[in-house]
Amino acid sequence: MTLILSNEDVDALLTMPECIAALEEAYRELAFGRGTNRRRSDSLVPTASPDALYALKTMDGIAPKLGVSAVRINSDIVTWPQRSGTKRREKIPAAPNSRWVGLVLLFSTETGEPLAIFPDGYMQRMRVGAANGLGVKYLARQDARTVGLLGSGWQAGAQLMAVTAVRNIECIRCYSPNAEHRATFARATTETIGVDVTPVGSAEDAVKGADIVMCATNTIDNVFFERWLEPGMHLSSIKRPELEPAAIKRADRVVIHTHDAAPMHITTPGLIVPDKEEGKGWNLMKEINFDTLPTLPQLIAGRTPGRGLPEHITCFLNNIGMGYQFAAVGAVVYRKAKAQGRGREVPTEWFTQDVHP
Amino acid sequence: MTLILSNEDVDALLTMPECIAALEEAYRELAFGRGTNRRRSDSLVPTASPDALYALKTMDGIAPKLGVSAVRINSDIVTWPQRSGTKRREKIPAAPNSRWVGLVLLFSTETGEPLAIFPDGYMQRMRVGAANGLGVKYLARQDARTVGLLGSGWQAGAQLMAVTAVRNIECIRCYSPNAEHRATFARATTETIGVDVTPVGSAEDAVKGADIVMCATNTIDNVFFERWLEPGMHLSSIKRPELEPAAIKRADRVVIHTHDAAPMHITTPGLIVPDKEEGKGWNLMKEINFDTLPTLPQLIAGRTPGRGLPEHITCFLNNIGMGYQFAAVGAVVYRKAKAQGRGREVPTEWFTQDVHP
Repeated sequence: MTLILSNEDVDALLTMPECIAALEEAYRELAFGRGTNRRRSDSLVPTASPDALYALKTMDGIAPKLGVSAVRINSDIVTWPQRSGTKRREKIPAAPNSRWVGLVLLFSTETGEPLAIFPDGYMQRMRVGAANGLGVKYLARQDARTVGLLGSGWQAGAQLMAVTAVRNIECIRCYSPNAEHRATFARATTETIGVDVTPVGSAEDAVKGADIVMCATNTIDNVFFERWLEPGMHLSSIKRPELEPAAIKRADRVVIHTHDAAPMHITTPGLIVPDKEEGKGWNLMKEINFDTLPTLPQLIAGRTPGRGLPEHITCFLNNIGMGYQFAAVGAVVYRKAKAQGRGREVPTEWFTQDVHP
Repeated sequence: MTLILSNEDVDALLTMPECIAALEEAYRELAFGRGTNRRRSDSLVPTASPDALYALKTMDGIAPKLGVSAVRINSDIVTWPQRSGTKRREKIPAAPNSRWVGLVLLFSTETGEPLAIFPDGYMQRMRVGAANGLGVKYLARQDARTVGLLGSGWQAGAQLMAVTAVRNIECIRCYSPNAEHRATFARATTETIGVDVTPVGSAEDAVKGADIVMCATNTIDNVFFERWLEPGMHLSSIKRPELEPAAIKRADRVVIHTHDAAPMHITTPGLIVPDKEEGKGWNLMKEINFDTLPTLPQLIAGRTPGRGLPEHITCFLNNIGMGYQFAAVGAVVYRKAKAQGRGREVPTEWFTQDVHP
């Protein structure tokens, strides 16, 4: 039988410590050449609306040790509305009942069969959190106790789940521009993670004195600046332009998620795609050669050093997702779902065939 | 609702003339820049068996005019056994009940939603046949009446369905090395297509005097030779090494399926993949620069001339599949399935989500 899982299933089955452990082992395997990742491709075409494009995004990867491969597919109507002065890339929930479409398909590398199909939303957030959590685990000071968080959205919560899973965090200060939103987020997240999250009135208030600064915004402009750096700090970003390039340059140790960074872009000829890298933040980032930075898999495999001295400043940059992450984390979710009898079983024969394709 | 279709559904819903018509229009759209194709990627890793590899093959494409995008996924255990002196690439049906795994997922470009999921086997064969059928339609003589077929396997049948859909074929001679197999094939296909298929004892007997020569083998050595060429012949191949390079070179007009030819290869470092291009036929093919040949979409769109004189020799080379073909043909199958109430309906909510991925 093939399992159909929901986001709720993934949420119930996958804890952040498990997600971190799965990725830690998977990154090590990848560093040792025992896994593959096919980099993301983004295909874009016009739609009937002049303001929207249709985007088909795919990525895949194989984790042989776990016996699993994964294909992730996103099928989106994308627009670029103006929000507070900048163009933001927004996906329209145009599927029936105002829903989005992101799917992960897991296959067995032993039999080829489809093991599970599930939406990508919850896992997407968990694996971003876990990657940054691993950045903290391998780069932040062992005695780090305080976190300054910039952002209070969907990704921000996972960042806190991750950082509290790898360090004994006692104090978290959170800033985002909307006071009400950051207060709601702080209350809810305090409950989820069991560590006090305090909303504060400015970014500087959040990061001042923090051992770990986590940026989890969807901005394309800098939100953390060099002048806020303090000795011993660890900086964590889910999107490179969040950090002023001068801050990255001043760090003693900078590690990037992967070099498999630039997606393949395929568009109909002449199509104008509002560039998500057109913000001021992205322009500034051109000063840095990301291709020469060590990667998270190299860091975890011990092929590049982690933190040196306690007063060093370290920095982890999460840049792009990998299909390989969905194979690794998907394997955990699949095995737990089977063990717990969770998910909807459908006949594997629906998705296999008796003719040689 | 999302439709789950079987190969039998695809077979019942899709006729060869419809498949040809859908691809003809889709290739024209592609030639005019109104569609995208993301070229095939083949990811390969070792398995527990030293003789087998696991292969994850994906391709995708968008046909905006039809409102459909497609992702095709093949998840295979691959071996390279020796068969009659040459290494053949063979996929093992390792999924439960000895089945193979090849899937097509169709999405709406208007809403993003998954429209249908079905195995790729039947459509795979139909779209190969249809592409070669279009080669015949645009290149062979209008008065072509006889076909010489080399091969009597799964693909060979679709080639005959296609050629009889575009020309008034009266006589078909078929050769393949196994006498029993070619006799069985001839009997069965005569019934299917309503034109007499005569098994003959040699390749030369099959092609001598034929207006159209169709090669539909899975060999990696030449099966058709320059010395067999006759004025006015059209040559059709599903795999380039079937034709002796000298035969291709002597043709007055040669058209190739697509320039999007080389798949991305992603393997674990140092993995030895028995090269399917290592046969004698492939080596000889290195004499020809395929990248400079006009493509089928260009031919259909009138951007490159078709046949010139009746005595000219023409040649169509099918090289690699495109995800885009599955979008175009998939759109036809999906619409007919909906109209006829065919297939298994499952809730689209299984494959969509209420969180922004």
